[in-house]
Amino acid sequence: MRFIIQRDQLMESIQHVMRAISARVTIPILSGIKIEATTAGIKLTGSDSDISIESFIPKEEDGIVHVEEIEAGSVVVQAKYFPDIIRKLPLKTVEIMTDENDQVTIRSGGAEFHLNGQDTVEYPQLPVLHTENSFEIKSDVLKDLIKQTVFAVSTVETRPILTGVNMKLEDDFLHFVATDSHRLASRKLPMEATSDQINFTSVVIPGKSLSELNKILEDSEEKISISVTENQILFQTNHLYFLSRLLDGNYPETSRLIPDQSKTIVYAKTKELLQAIDRASLLAKENRNNVVKLQTKENNQLEITSNTPEVGEVVEGLSTVGKEGEDLKISFSAKYMIDALRIIEEEQVKIEFTGAMRPFIIRPMDNNYILQLILPVRTY
Amino acid sequence: MRFIIQRDQLMESIQHVMRAISARVTIPILSGIKIEATTAGIKLTGSDSDISIESFIPKEEDGIVHVEEIEAGSVVVQAKYFPDIIRKLPLKTVEIMTDENDQVTIRSGGAEFHLNGQDTVEYPQLPVLHTENSFEIKSDVLKDLIKQTVFAVSTVETRPILTGVNMKLEDDFLHFVATDSHRLASRKLPMEATSDQINFTSVVIPGKSLSELNKILEDSEEKISISVTENQILFQTNHLYFLSRLLDGNYPETSRLIPDQSKTIVYAKTKELLQAIDRASLLAKENRNNVVKLQTKENNQLEITSNTPEVGEVVEGLSTVGKEGEDLKISFSAKYMIDALRIIEEEQVKIEFTGAMRPFIIRPMDNNYILQLILPVRTY
Repeated sequence: MRFIIQRDQLMESIQHVMRAISARVTIPILSGIKIEATTAGIKLTGSDSDISIESFIPKEEDGIVHVEEIEAGSVVVQAKYFPDIIRKLPLKTVEIMTDENDQVTIRSGGAEFHLNGQDTVEYPQLPVLHTENSFEIKSDVLKDLIKQTVFAVSTVETRPILTGVNMKLEDDFLHFVATDSHRLASRKLPMEATSDQINFTSVVIPGKSLSELNKILEDSEEKISISVTENQILFQTNHLYFLSRLLDGNYPETSRLIPDQSKTIVYAKTKELLQAIDRASLLAKENRNNVVKLQTKENNQLEITSNTPEVGEVVEGLSTVGKEGEDLKISFSAKYMIDALRIIEEEQVKIEFTGAMRPFIIRPMDNNYILQLILPVRTY
Repeated sequence: MRFIIQRDQLMESIQHVMRAISARVTIPILSGIKIEATTAGIKLTGSDSDISIESFIPKEEDGIVHVEEIEAGSVVVQAKYFPDIIRKLPLKTVEIMTDENDQVTIRSGGAEFHLNGQDTVEYPQLPVLHTENSFEIKSDVLKDLIKQTVFAVSTVETRPILTGVNMKLEDDFLHFVATDSHRLASRKLPMEATSDQINFTSVVIPGKSLSELNKILEDSEEKISISVTENQILFQTNHLYFLSRLLDGNYPETSRLIPDQSKTIVYAKTKELLQAIDRASLLAKENRNNVVKLQTKENNQLEITSNTPEVGEVVEGLSTVGKEGEDLKISFSAKYMIDALRIIEEEQVKIEFTGAMRPFIIRPMDNNYILQLILPVRTY
């Protein structure tokens, strides 16, 4: 194998595939990056068995030459050293070649590295997905779906299925739901007529896979093709191939958790409410579970309070945009409320309560596609 | 105590005094920030016994009002909460007041915090320095002196005196020296005639104190007054008072370590050499002490190599600007060399060797005020 490549291009691909490489792997060769050179270009692969990422650098694209003098071949290089070496090379181009003993030579200007490589025959073959279950969405829309839900997945392994995001297709909506059983985040996306050819209904994607995918995807309108099989999901763009296993098991039916009526509705400015709760939580960090209290007051006022006897107390007064229904006192995790409000870009939110001990719902005003649900904490 | 203060101004002072506050203090009240209000303005104090910092916010300065409605008084607030509270307040001004039980009320917009404060009578009195040993240097020059030496102090406590920087005044030069016994950094500053009134000759300032001071000082031409007593040193600007204890004991005489002749002199481009050594060190991290080898070659070439059998090897070829004297093979810590080259702003450096087992000297070209010395490592 031998080729000369643009360093920036190579570095970007390395950063992408590194997202799948973990320091703690059971198969030693997976601590490496697989490099494959063909006449079409260079393909890098990283995998930790759960996630596999391939990044392709075409020989030439839009008239710009990325790779030159390609001699086909492949090798696995140690991911612990290869990225730092490439990043620090002195010139804009790098020559990479292997000998018959899988010794890798990396050359750029006066710098010459010889790394012990490994034969790619030992590298696990990535599964080839055979599926008709494909649909496309825009990269920036997929990033939104991920950001608006993935924070709510469970981080404990007591119920493994809850560490994933439930992706459903129903009634011409693509629907992402995540819950850790204390709060829930839901985002719907109206789908166009392409849904004819899709016949999966519900899968559960590991939260970690979506978080890594979100870090790689660009905030652009580029189309991402999503393909689903029984065990795996593939996100594919022009030069990126992101494969994740799916979680086994049935995701709980969450729709019945969502109250269909409310006793108190509060309309508030998203940012003001977020900042008031953030401040109130400053003194709530040492009490149980970061709990703050919210109370409706006269003249459409809200009061948010928190109190840790050894430290002190905080009282936040806030004018709402409006209030309907009964007065209310409720306690909840400031962290959950902050997480929920942070992903809402709309200026105003609507919060629907059904009493101090029932879950409440946060939605952006005039946007029914985002729904956040939080279970209160018993303190009164 | 009561006053209304500009939040940004208060925040800056808090950040300054926080540099002296440590989570691990033996005197509990030192985990707090002391606030004193007088008709002149507000003074904040932070201290961990070793370092004490006072920051003063005048009531009014250059026609700009920083503090209003001052009622004199003082209190100690918990440093764990106070900075975050002030930073997150909603308005540009903050009202701070205490009651007779040292309860502190912090008010800004709809936010109201009540913090348990402590009586300042328990806060240790900072020593008042009585000394004539004062001199002034510019803030940016003092920052340079610190940056060019403090990295070389010892980080182990086997010889406590080496954890400090030796500040000497001799032959009309202010001289900073630091060494961990494997390398040495030295910087001289020609002093003006003011030195008449100074009669200290040599003190040792804890490296940590200088690092913290460097973080607070601005890169400006503002004058810093430096006062020295037997046990303490005070750095003072208009609104800042930075007091540090000095280290006990005699600093070793370092001048005799510096070779007065050389067998090989290499002239190199600072940045090129730094980058080549940085790359060579990538594969040296797992061998003993991050060691690289340097070898002079024909035609004014240098070769820097490193080798870890399990990983691979690197060969860096570099054109020097010139070479005088014998050929040379020498091994040294890449980290020490990188530290030494990083603080040199000049384009070219002069490296003087006296053989493979003798310390060598790195200096910027045409600047005799900076000197770096590194002890080689025996490998050949």
